[in-house]
Amino acid sequence: MIECALTVIKEPLVEETVKIRVPPSDLADNLGKWLETKEETDVTFNVRGETFHAHKILLAMRSPVFKAQLYGPMGDRTARNITVEDMQPDVFKDLLDFIYCDKLPSLDNPDKENDEMVKHLLVAADRYAMERMKMICEAVLCKSLTVETVASTLALADQYHCSGLKDACIEFAISCNRMGGVVASQGYVHLKRSCPAVLGDILERVTKSPKV
Amino acid sequence: MIECALTVIKEPLVEETVKIRVPPSDLADNLGKWLETKEETDVTFNVRGETFHAHKILLAMRSPVFKAQLYGPMGDRTARNITVEDMQPDVFKDLLDFIYCDKLPSLDNPDKENDEMVKHLLVAADRYAMERMKMICEAVLCKSLTVETVASTLALADQYHCSGLKDACIEFAISCNRMGGVVASQGYVHLKRSCPAVLGDILERVTKSPKV
Repeated sequence: MIECALTVIKEPLVEETVKIRVPPSDLADNLGKWLETKEETDVTFNVRGETFHAHKILLAMRSPVFKAQLYGPMGDRTARNITVEDMQPDVFKDLLDFIYCDKLPSLDNPDKENDEMVKHLLVAADRYAMERMKMICEAVLCKSLTVETVASTLALADQYHCSGLKDACIEFAISCNRMGGVVASQGYVHLKRSCPAVLGDILERVTKSPKV
Repeated sequence: MIECALTVIKEPLVEETVKIRVPPSDLADNLGKWLETKEETDVTFNVRGETFHAHKILLAMRSPVFKAQLYGPMGDRTARNITVEDMQPDVFKDLLDFIYCDKLPSLDNPDKENDEMVKHLLVAADRYAMERMKMICEAVLCKSLTVETVASTLALADQYHCSGLKDACIEFAISCNRMGGVVASQGYVHLKRSCPAVLGDILERVTKSPKV
């Protein structure tokens, strides 16, 4: 049985005839335009030979790590050219897009096999303490778990303190008789070597669950 | 007869057990925090004795008028203290809140008789070319039209080129035998004096409509 509750609200007459439509927020668009045009940028990042221009204050507003680096007592207020190590340029580009526009362009292509890119984005989000960006990456990875990938995703989740993703991986692994396949996967070797404590977490969960 | 179309989508098993909830965008909150704490502000506005601190680049990103004033060829790049004439401090405060957070705190109190405040906000939005803020004000005024207020709201709509609000006012005025009351209202005298051309717009609409 499906029950539908319908509420009919009578609007004033003028609403029926002339309505002013307020467009959605343009805050992210306004900011994104200045990232695109590079107008009035005051800092340059060199990422493996590629150059990115940005506005220091906006980076600091969005990322506590950039705040410390650009304005903190241990940072360098006069820094104009910063070299970013250990990151791919396309990952840094998405990080900037997220800082300005709350978007991750790399995730807009669902056809593409982009689990690796999402993992890189998660690591970048963790590095710059962008909590919401990290959770978006966790949610994407959580949806694309397979028997072959779950062990390596679990290792990543453990390494970068993603408790939600870690729980999802363990739950996925012990469900539906998947443990055999997981143990046989390549990622499991890596998981066992790099995060042995996680194996204990799995074992404890298995003993509580009748699913394996 | 009401038809309900229901689509049942089967989610993968892991979704049913562990779900990662991504919180809503925190872009506006991140920016708003820096307006509140005044950290790293680089410009000060004096509005009728009250002082407001802000970040120049953010003002310019959001308002083409601030952009011209702070970074344009006719503006003053070195300006640190700016005096704002002809504006109430609480209106300027809401303008800054909208620039940083896309919010107009004055509109959050629906019980308050705040038509006058909304009109001031519309004028401020027009002055700084904040189009979406202006439309929000138009939409609020559109919903609160009465026989007594419609003429003065129409004069404002005409003066600040709010075509949507102007249409709504005319439509409201000529509907339901309201014209008599409108002509008798105080605002009508002001409308007749300041925007006589609008009376022609009303007359033309009346001749097309059988409602009066």
